[in-house]
Amino acid sequence: MPPTVPVLPDGIDPAWLPPEAFRPLGTRRTLVHGTGPLVDTVHGEVAYACGRFGGAVVRNSSDEESGDSYDLVLRLARPTAAEAGVLGNIGDLGDEGFAYERADATATVTAVGQRGLLYGLFHVVRLGENAFRGARVRQVHRPASALRMLDHWDNVAVHPVMGQVERGYAGGSLFWRDGKARGEWERVRAYGRLLAACGVNAVSVNNVNVHEAEAHLLTDRIDQVARIAEELRPYGIRTHLSVTFAAPVVLGGLSTADPFEGAVREWWAEAVRGVYSAIWDFGGFVVKADSEGQPGPFTYGRSHADGANMLAAALAPFGGTVHWRAFVYNHRQDWRDRSTDRARAAYDHFAPLDGEFADNAVLQVKHGPMDFQVREPVSPVLGALPRTRVAVEVQATQEYTGQQQHVCWLGPMWSEVLRFRPDGEQGPAVGELTRGGLVAVSNAGDDPFWTGHPLAQANLYTFGRLAWQPDADPHDLLDEWIALTFPPVSDPAAHERLAAGLRAVLHGSWRTYEKYTAPLAVGFMVQPGHHYGPGVDGYEYSPWGTYHFADRDGIGVDRSAATGTGYAAQYAKPWAKLYESVVSCPDELLLFFHHVPYGHVLKSGKTVVQHIYDTHFEGVEEAEEARRVWAGLADLVEPARHTRAAERYEEQVRCAREWRDQVNSYFLRKSGVPDERGRTIH
Amino acid sequence: MPPTVPVLPDGIDPAWLPPEAFRPLGTRRTLVHGTGPLVDTVHGEVAYACGRFGGAVVRNSSDEESGDSYDLVLRLARPTAAEAGVLGNIGDLGDEGFAYERADATATVTAVGQRGLLYGLFHVVRLGENAFRGARVRQVHRPASALRMLDHWDNVAVHPVMGQVERGYAGGSLFWRDGKARGEWERVRAYGRLLAACGVNAVSVNNVNVHEAEAHLLTDRIDQVARIAEELRPYGIRTHLSVTFAAPVVLGGLSTADPFEGAVREWWAEAVRGVYSAIWDFGGFVVKADSEGQPGPFTYGRSHADGANMLAAALAPFGGTVHWRAFVYNHRQDWRDRSTDRARAAYDHFAPLDGEFADNAVLQVKHGPMDFQVREPVSPVLGALPRTRVAVEVQATQEYTGQQQHVCWLGPMWSEVLRFRPDGEQGPAVGELTRGGLVAVSNAGDDPFWTGHPLAQANLYTFGRLAWQPDADPHDLLDEWIALTFPPVSDPAAHERLAAGLRAVLHGSWRTYEKYTAPLAVGFMVQPGHHYGPGVDGYEYSPWGTYHFADRDGIGVDRSAATGTGYAAQYAKPWAKLYESVVSCPDELLLFFHHVPYGHVLKSGKTVVQHIYDTHFEGVEEAEEARRVWAGLADLVEPARHTRAAERYEEQVRCAREWRDQVNSYFLRKSGVPDERGRTIH
Repeated sequence: MPPTVPVLPDGIDPAWLPPEAFRPLGTRRTLVHGTGPLVDTVHGEVAYACGRFGGAVVRNSSDEESGDSYDLVLRLARPTAAEAGVLGNIGDLGDEGFAYERADATATVTAVGQRGLLYGLFHVVRLGENAFRGARVRQVHRPASALRMLDHWDNVAVHPVMGQVERGYAGGSLFWRDGKARGEWERVRAYGRLLAACGVNAVSVNNVNVHEAEAHLLTDRIDQVARIAEELRPYGIRTHLSVTFAAPVVLGGLSTADPFEGAVREWWAEAVRGVYSAIWDFGGFVVKADSEGQPGPFTYGRSHADGANMLAAALAPFGGTVHWRAFVYNHRQDWRDRSTDRARAAYDHFAPLDGEFADNAVLQVKHGPMDFQVREPVSPVLGALPRTRVAVEVQATQEYTGQQQHVCWLGPMWSEVLRFRPDGEQGPAVGELTRGGLVAVSNAGDDPFWTGHPLAQANLYTFGRLAWQPDADPHDLLDEWIALTFPPVSDPAAHERLAAGLRAVLHGSWRTYEKYTAPLAVGFMVQPGHHYGPGVDGYEYSPWGTYHFADRDGIGVDRSAATGTGYAAQYAKPWAKLYESVVSCPDELLLFFHHVPYGHVLKSGKTVVQHIYDTHFEGVEEAEEARRVWAGLADLVEPARHTRAAERYEEQVRCAREWRDQVNSYFLRKSGVPDERGRTIH
Repeated sequence: MPPTVPVLPDGIDPAWLPPEAFRPLGTRRTLVHGTGPLVDTVHGEVAYACGRFGGAVVRNSSDEESGDSYDLVLRLARPTAAEAGVLGNIGDLGDEGFAYERADATATVTAVGQRGLLYGLFHVVRLGENAFRGARVRQVHRPASALRMLDHWDNVAVHPVMGQVERGYAGGSLFWRDGKARGEWERVRAYGRLLAACGVNAVSVNNVNVHEAEAHLLTDRIDQVARIAEELRPYGIRTHLSVTFAAPVVLGGLSTADPFEGAVREWWAEAVRGVYSAIWDFGGFVVKADSEGQPGPFTYGRSHADGANMLAAALAPFGGTVHWRAFVYNHRQDWRDRSTDRARAAYDHFAPLDGEFADNAVLQVKHGPMDFQVREPVSPVLGALPRTRVAVEVQATQEYTGQQQHVCWLGPMWSEVLRFRPDGEQGPAVGELTRGGLVAVSNAGDDPFWTGHPLAQANLYTFGRLAWQPDADPHDLLDEWIALTFPPVSDPAAHERLAAGLRAVLHGSWRTYEKYTAPLAVGFMVQPGHHYGPGVDGYEYSPWGTYHFADRDGIGVDRSAATGTGYAAQYAKPWAKLYESVVSCPDELLLFFHHVPYGHVLKSGKTVVQHIYDTHFEGVEEAEEARRVWAGLADLVEPARHTRAAERYEEQVRCAREWRDQVNSYFLRKSGVPDERGRTIH
């Protein structure tokens, strides 16, 4: 018996794996060839599809050829010399790659590793009917990185301020409720299945801010983590854990967590042994140390490399990895102090440590120097540590981008980051440089649509696929998501209208959000604490290092080397030069790098203040237009899904107008410059 | 056996009733004459003092004269014709008044009501040794109003946002913890004793925002209220309850709470019967209706008089009173809408209802038109309902005045309100007009010092005494508080140094706080939500109706009749005329009534913006000076108390600097006008 495909509870949206997406596969004859638990998963998937749609599946666990003919062969191969001749260097497929080809009316997926076969299966699902049409020469698919990870900022116990899920906008946690594992294992497995289908292979199951209850997951509550790992494992996902650097003190009763103390190292070694005895394929730790109040090696006068390497040493014998977050800055800054620049902090802390991190340590770096704003320059840290395994961290959960009340498809933003070339146009892209992989803070929770806003599913899907292939065109990935999530109906014209509508509301949604919020990369301007909705001065006099310095004459942060904080000089020369000058600095990053008068003329030909007015009016108009387009798709979208998104469009338009009016009023009051077009500014 | 004086748990500050304050009484021979439970209380107090200090007390419950001579006679008299001849119209003393005189080496307190005798006792305690010196002609003391009330915004169950005590800055509730009465009855009784000693005679024991758990106090949890009443009763305090207008629906299962429905009126009548069968001297209800989301009569198209009178009718047979709060305004205002003025709301709602309220209904009106800001004009509602029993509500809990981290003695502010003459200089003062009495939101909690900051005790004491005698000079009341709280030590010079220090840090503290916070009555500028610390634009674009309209040219709210919201015209002519003109409007209220350019010259000769800079520098200097003065009193103040206040002075100075710098930076950035004196503005 193959393992069963997880059955979703009633009312839970199937996201990008609706049954209909399996019709092409489920109507064919398939041979599954190979042994192992993930091959069983593949077999189970095919069997389930065939059970539904009338096809057939044969499992052949020997290497012998079958006499029958199949529409599809899913084949776990052992790389023999003979095969190497036929298939090319099959070893190149690695554990996760696969080859796809079609000849003589048979499509063949070949993999060496079991996970490769699983990803090959979902590739066939993505191709749909096209998987079974025409001849296809052999294509090899391999992930760019072996680490494609989701971090869940889920608390085990409800935090009095941050709730069950910190920065979560999709209901409760999939894993935890009220202090313990919630035990909805079928849903956890279904989540793993969705993630496998877009290429994610690692999940960290608890918040990087590790509170009391969460600390114990490492030791006496590891069984609960093991139970989650058991559900994710059939879909090729390794489970990771956020731990507190102070664990030897908090849990172990030691008097110190100094990484140079033998007793501390022994405590970690023992703790890790305990973890692996419960979870043999445990992925490793995620650590937020010396950051926003979390403990870290600075307490003991040690470097971040010292701290990370201690954990790496404990994990190494078992093949585990430590993800060490680079989000270290002074969060108790004095707003009066203009010499301190939070944007500089990660580079200043970590660039000098290049080469000092262990092989199984990954430095996890936020994509921008600040904190997941709608527009930031790419972090200079990403190009500054060539001898370190660096991972890029993005935020699928929309903390600063509309909190899943607003449509804001982040594919294009992430793609820009991954395509950025830190050493200049001739150098490699971030997506090539970052051997540590791609990490997203998950946007999923126990919401019936997984992500609150049904269209926010596109962010999760796009993230997984970009992690697999960082140079993919995100628009192609969105089309994949559309085709899977809304499988073609019998009327192709109707389907094309739906797809066109989805593209219309998603493609430009990031830039729309940018237009009606903080202008020209100046950032923040949000309500303090929860970060939803406008608060132009919300963080202006705070200790968080996030200022716009608007006065009656101008706005922006001077981060030039010549007259500002020097942040611009953290980049390699081509970029440093570009950003240094107010003349060459790209419009969209201008206020991140320079303080300019309201009358400064952008490359667009507009003054800064007129740009602010214009974009804010445009942003609202675009949100209103998206709402209109979505309303016009009512006949093509499942009613519950359509209604949910329609409700959120109401809120998006309301909130966008609030942004427009507050930002425009703020700058009219401050600058005194009237709108050229005489529109209403309050 | 007389009832025992409550014994404070270890570590709880005795506030203004330290044992030493009873020495003069406790060393004398006293006759207590009369019968009744409050006479027992008086007897118990005297016996306790004598037990400590060696005096003696005789209880004579008959009307017969005693042959002995006494230093003090505390006498509950029956007003006979003969006595009326001797003592004047003894009936005039009422239930709460008393007469004090001293002749032939005997001081005599005479009262008709038992509460009068209790207040007479505390009068003797306040007089200290002076009570037993020289001859004193008969003085009659009567409270100006029969209602001198504290409202506790205490939640029974911890509210997820507002906590155990809404706007509480003194620890937990004295009455409730974790969903039920906390059962520390000795402490409750000690609280009642402190209140009696300053003249408070009514306490409402739960928050005016009535949530689920609190609603049930009215019915199935009335026993818990009764238990509190039992402890407060010996000190002459009647217990009141905040109720939800929706109680017939929420608790009674009716489909409506319409005051015109017979079933609703019957439900309330029955509920009130239940209350009085548990608490025979129950004071009545406090109701926040149609306010900030609370339900009210508007739901049913009825007026506030209709709503209040329904409850009044239910309470009337038992002598109960309904306190109906006038804090009704649109808290979902659109900040873009400049025609709506929250300051107008209470007058607009309630002035037309004058004469419509039942005799046992009290309209409870906040002292200013907004919400307990450090400076507001006196509410025009206080003079607008001559045929209504109006109570003035003040806020002893320092929501907007430093939250008991800052010293801000509010006596002078409250006194200004009570001395204000709504009809002009020839008319009566607010303190004479408001037959409904004086109400304060309590600043007390389970903190060891009762009020968080030990010096905030002065606010509670001053409130009670002002409620008794609204035309008292608050500085005299402060001296009473000083003499009681810090009883004279053996070294008179040291005591005078202490008293002078306390006056120095308290007398000007309100104006100091005003100086470093929102200028010229413009109000707010606080952090949203918790209301502590500066947030100049914190409420500028909010739905709460609290705006300053600062732009690059000027600041303030035009509330004139000629060009503004018309609020100024809600006053009687002399005030309306004064406030209407930017020329005659007092400086300290200027920005409440007018929008003026930063260069507008005040009566003080300074421009508005220079006034802002100057007062903010001065305010910080004054806070620093107060901290220095307090530090110099270390040898004269009990160490725990001194340390607590010293710690809070650190926070006050830190926070005052934050206010100074944020406000000054904000206005420098906006106005571009440099400080005349060239001081540092960031």
